[in-house]
Amino acid sequence: MRPSGRKIDQMREVSIETGVTRHAEGSCLIRMGDTHVLCTATIDERVPQFLKNSGLGWVTAEYGMLPRATHTRMRREAKNGQSGRTQEIQRLIGRSLRAGVDRVALGERQITVDCDVIQADGGTRCAAITGGWVALKLAVNQLMKAGIVISDPLVDPVAAISCGIYAGQEILDLDYPEDSEAGVDGNFIMTAGKLVEVQMSAEGATFSRGQMDNLLDLAGAGITALNRVQLDAVK
Amino acid sequence: MRPSGRKIDQMREVSIETGVTRHAEGSCLIRMGDTHVLCTATIDERVPQFLKNSGLGWVTAEYGMLPRATHTRMRREAKNGQSGRTQEIQRLIGRSLRAGVDRVALGERQITVDCDVIQADGGTRCAAITGGWVALKLAVNQLMKAGIVISDPLVDPVAAISCGIYAGQEILDLDYPEDSEAGVDGNFIMTAGKLVEVQMSAEGATFSRGQMDNLLDLAGAGITALNRVQLDAVK
Amino acid sequence: MRPSGRKIDQMREVSIETGVTRHAEGSCLIRMGDTHVLCTATIDERVPQFLKNSGLGWVTAEYGMLPRATHTRMRREAKNGQSGRTQEIQRLIGRSLRAGVDRVALGERQITVDCDVIQADGGTRCAAITGGWVALKLAVNQLMKAGIVISDPLVDPVAAISCGIYAGQEILDLDYPEDSEAGVDGNFIMTAGKLVEVQMSAEGATFSRGQMDNLLDLAGAGITALNRVQLDAVK
Amino acid sequence: MRPSGRKIDQMREVSIETGVTRHAEGSCLIRMGDTHVLCTATIDERVPQFLKNSGLGWVTAEYGMLPRATHTRMRREAKNGQSGRTQEIQRLIGRSLRAGVDRVALGERQITVDCDVIQADGGTRCAAITGGWVALKLAVNQLMKAGIVISDPLVDPVAAISCGIYAGQEILDLDYPEDSEAGVDGNFIMTAGKLVEVQMSAEGATFSRGQMDNLLDLAGAGITALNRVQLDAVK
Amino acid sequence: MRPSGRKIDQMREVSIETGVTRHAEGSCLIRMGDTHVLCTATIDERVPQFLKNSGLGWVTAEYGMLPRATHTRMRREAKNGQSGRTQEIQRLIGRSLRAGVDRVALGERQITVDCDVIQADGGTRCAAITGGWVALKLAVNQLMKAGIVISDPLVDPVAAISCGIYAGQEILDLDYPEDSEAGVDGNFIMTAGKLVEVQMSAEGATFSRGQMDNLLDLAGAGITALNRVQLDAVK
Amino acid sequence: MRPSGRKIDQMREVSIETGVTRHAEGSCLIRMGDTHVLCTATIDERVPQFLKNSGLGWVTAEYGMLPRATHTRMRREAKNGQSGRTQEIQRLIGRSLRAGVDRVALGERQITVDCDVIQADGGTRCAAITGGWVALKLAVNQLMKAGIVISDPLVDPVAAISCGIYAGQEILDLDYPEDSEAGVDGNFIMTAGKLVEVQMSAEGATFSRGQMDNLLDLAGAGITALNRVQLDAVK
Repeated sequence: MRPSGRKIDQMREVSIETGVTRHAEGSCLIRMGDTHVLCTATIDERVPQFLKNSGLGWVTAEYGMLPRATHTRMRREAKNGQSGRTQEIQRLIGRSLRAGVDRVALGERQITVDCDVIQADGGTRCAAITGGWVALKLAVNQLMKAGIVISDPLVDPVAAISCGIYAGQEILDLDYPEDSEAGVDGNFIMTAGKLVEVQMSAEGATFSRGQMDNLLDLAGAGITALNRVQLDAVK
Repeated sequence: MRPSGRKIDQMREVSIETGVTRHAEGSCLIRMGDTHVLCTATIDERVPQFLKNSGLGWVTAEYGMLPRATHTRMRREAKNGQSGRTQEIQRLIGRSLRAGVDRVALGERQITVDCDVIQADGGTRCAAITGGWVALKLAVNQLMKAGIVISDPLVDPVAAISCGIYAGQEILDLDYPEDSEAGVDGNFIMTAGKLVEVQMSAEGATFSRGQMDNLLDLAGAGITALNRVQLDAVK
Repeated sequence: MRPSGRKIDQMREVSIETGVTRHAEGSCLIRMGDTHVLCTATIDERVPQFLKNSGLGWVTAEYGMLPRATHTRMRREAKNGQSGRTQEIQRLIGRSLRAGVDRVALGERQITVDCDVIQADGGTRCAAITGGWVALKLAVNQLMKAGIVISDPLVDPVAAISCGIYAGQEILDLDYPEDSEAGVDGNFIMTAGKLVEVQMSAEGATFSRGQMDNLLDLAGAGITALNRVQLDAVK
Repeated sequence: MRPSGRKIDQMREVSIETGVTRHAEGSCLIRMGDTHVLCTATIDERVPQFLKNSGLGWVTAEYGMLPRATHTRMRREAKNGQSGRTQEIQRLIGRSLRAGVDRVALGERQITVDCDVIQADGGTRCAAITGGWVALKLAVNQLMKAGIVISDPLVDPVAAISCGIYAGQEILDLDYPEDSEAGVDGNFIMTAGKLVEVQMSAEGATFSRGQMDNLLDLAGAGITALNRVQLDAVK
Repeated sequence: MRPSGRKIDQMREVSIETGVTRHAEGSCLIRMGDTHVLCTATIDERVPQFLKNSGLGWVTAEYGMLPRATHTRMRREAKNGQSGRTQEIQRLIGRSLRAGVDRVALGERQITVDCDVIQADGGTRCAAITGGWVALKLAVNQLMKAGIVISDPLVDPVAAISCGIYAGQEILDLDYPEDSEAGVDGNFIMTAGKLVEVQMSAEGATFSRGQMDNLLDLAGAGITALNRVQLDAVK
Repeated sequence: MRPSGRKIDQMREVSIETGVTRHAEGSCLIRMGDTHVLCTATIDERVPQFLKNSGLGWVTAEYGMLPRATHTRMRREAKNGQSGRTQEIQRLIGRSLRAGVDRVALGERQITVDCDVIQADGGTRCAAITGGWVALKLAVNQLMKAGIVISDPLVDPVAAISCGIYAGQEILDLDYPEDSEAGVDGNFIMTAGKLVEVQMSAEGATFSRGQMDNLLDLAGAGITALNRVQLDAVK
């Protein structure tokens, strides 16, 4: 029934390759099917103005797409002047990653997670969160190995998965052809078995409480599977 | 328990005053407690480029705050150069209003709903959606009275309400003091008894499936009450 | 003779409602006929760089229009990127208000007066100055009540009125239909019976010394009437 | 009494050198004392959108300063992003020049007058208008010589002069040291013995009706003298 | 003598992997030592305005760096608002690639070559040109296979190599440690054994005619080696 | 053979007039035929951030064109938002001038050289460098006369000249008609008989090693002639 031929609750094949760039403190290339995102984590001993002398750390994210990551070429975007869509995505990534961080344990420093989409086929923001956590964890591991951070500020992985309603049926992990047809779709972010973000959105459609329940069930199972891949990657 | 002294499921007092500006095709001032939003609807016979010759209508929204709508003065924002937060909000308002529009019945024209916050005390985006629908409906009524639109493209009202978890308890319609303390909060948009958008977000916290269920219940009841006020206003 | 049916020297009905927003230190809604401007005054203990450690205060202004304050919808403007017209207007408002301020008595602090046009029908900049002075005075009264400012820095009200030449006749307080037809028009700002600004401008026309004299006479009488409304409002 | 040693009603020495650049359709370098402005006029057969197929011509102006035209170096400005002051000035120049143009006789074409200050010593906007008219006239003369324009659209010269109140005394044509001390100053633009613009402005001061009358008298005499220099230049 | 231990005329190891992204008409990942650049070519049937109806094709380029391609994180850049350095580089890439294109044979269409640096270690612009030609050739091959282009517009490869003077000695293909120490360095672009661009630049140093000659010799040999790798890649 | 009628190795007539503006610390107007560039040097005791407390001086440049310096009118450019071409040129001017500066002798201060093209006829960047050095030298002379700088940081003049291949022949100092026809052209900057920059660029053409040698010869002779004019001007 799905264009991809996958079962309703079947995620695409996921792989996470770590250490892919020489300069970043943490990095990985996450592949969810044909969606490929390069995630790097950069440690900065300076925090944003509002956290000066607070003793608290910060995690922030930026999201970008190479111009030809998509079917048709897209314009480049800069830090100032990003589209509303891009800003929404990177605010979501940052907020989601922070949900899994003990900011006292991290100490007064900032980690910036850059998520750059090399190739897009739907679900890029979810892949960015899932891969971004791996890059973040690898950078934190360096801080711990160096004795700069003592207590691990990242106990449980944060992961994200999309769900949607396609042809009247709730499905897991939409690829681009599915995503562009679904009237209802959204993203679920979880850590340690609990919800961090729920973003369901309909365009030209609505959805019932019962459908919402089914989507929450699908997402829970998907996230559990992603957590295993994440933990393997950072071992 | 709530700083406002309200009961857990008690909304603030809501009023919608229509016809508040002379020039707009539809207008209202919605007050949810101390949150006051001026909503105007502007009809434009031209549609965006991607809808030319499609026969389909479009509804879009812009959101703004007067500089001193808030406790401390904020910088003005323009159409190009709005903050990520503002863009997220106005994209949400537009998407939500469109969910209640029969775009074939509207015909190839665009209605822009401007939501300008005169005074803010939490929940401005929800007030903007609820009031925005009223302005939109009044503009559409003009089109119908003039015989330009025949079949009503707005059958059921679209309304929005915030919910959150405050001091471990799920509550309805957060005002600013509650909102700034809540670790989990979000917005629910519904039409005709069905969901259109769910946006739950935690910052430094998480929430369980059970809590999600309670929030969905609170929102459903709130929306029903808002719909009555909307329908009274457009009579 | 006038489209409005008013006599040559007849101003529109003026009202000033104070205390219209909860957060601002001073606020009012001024109505000159169908021109409605919301004015708020914000006190800031920091002054611009060039006044640091000078002991002198500063008053500045910003001017905006809600997108649908006018017959046809206008684009939103931001602090950076305002049109030449908007910048000219807000520079005029700030300069005019400062003309009535004893900056030593005010002390080293800044008051920002925001003038936002809710509904426009000609003469918005004059209404903004006249109402802006009221908001400014109310904010200063708070500083005096709190004992922060001892000697009143605002002795006489500053007010503004437009005049122009319509159908060969000098007239007072042009509304939009009159303003869009007049070949010569301008604004007069006065305080304590003296001139502060004179801005007469012709587009596709010229005017004689004699006409200039008549315009100055009309303006003087109008300003006297406005001062009474201002003083009533701040009592 | 004046820092310049000039009499109260004495203008600085004025010269206008024409034909100073090879590419422009009309050009001059105007010197009013140490204020030197290069004015060029460019003919464009296209008019702005709002004049398409109207049969009417348009004259517009841009104003700039070389970075080191002033005592201290200033930042460069572009077409988009000019300061409020620059925009005010170039709007004034364009409006003033148009006051002397018969737009039907000019025909549907646009002339852009660029006024670039090479060296500044007060009164740059007045020099720009006075010199700008000369560049404009020379460009129009080319159109008439070529038979493209038949009836001269520029019958009387437009000129501008500053006046102000310095040490309690009304004076003509302020240079920079006078201008920076004067509490009241402004600009008068005239054509054919009639007023086109009056812009008097006080900063930290006020002025009486009597003083206004004296300033108008001074300006009238100054403009008459400037007109002679202009007419000599375009012969 | 060289920090890299390489001989004076020894290039880094070069590899070009083609077909690395699914969506682009041509793509490759070029590695020159630790400098890795992803190059994609996008075919667009529309040409820039100045070429409409000319029958001539166009090749243009954009250059970017992932934020953490470098030792320290860099700000993202957009199409409007790129730094002077970035604009210089992408203008050079476009100009260089066009030097090897028969624009009549290409026909009235545009190919955009995006060069995104994944990891930087000196010489990124040269790698971008060398790899960019490969992506361009692969895209052109598709046009020829489809019969849209008949005669090959890309006869000889265009390649680029850096040279510089390090510790008084002319060397080939500088990596970052060498580049940051060299007082003189530059880039040579060649096609078919002829020069297309020479850009030698000294900062805090100068160079003689004799040194210039040696640099030209080094570059010629390096380019010949690069051409072999390019031709292998596009086979 | 040349459109200008000049011999292959014949430069246009060059003159440098100094002291042309009253405010700048150093200034000149350089004329190379019909290319006229006004150069001013501004001394600033503050250096850019990266040089604070280094004891080293800095020289930077900005380049601009009056809107009607060219055949057709061009848009004004600002400091932020300059075209790629403008940025390339001013980076080149700054780099070239610095090549002739002993930054220790200059001491921790910055000199900004503004080069504004009054009239353009090809070779504006070369004229800007040659004239810019004169303005710089005059400003440095002031510092030395005042005893602020002891040892002359500018021993040898820096000058620039364009060369190109026109109708198959290498020629010196291209004017606009020659420049717009030449398939290969570029700029050579030298000081004290040594090269500082070489920028040869072909568009739709290539050039051989032999041609490159001829161009280097032509440039060397031209620069020697320019140095004499520079040294005369600063005497």
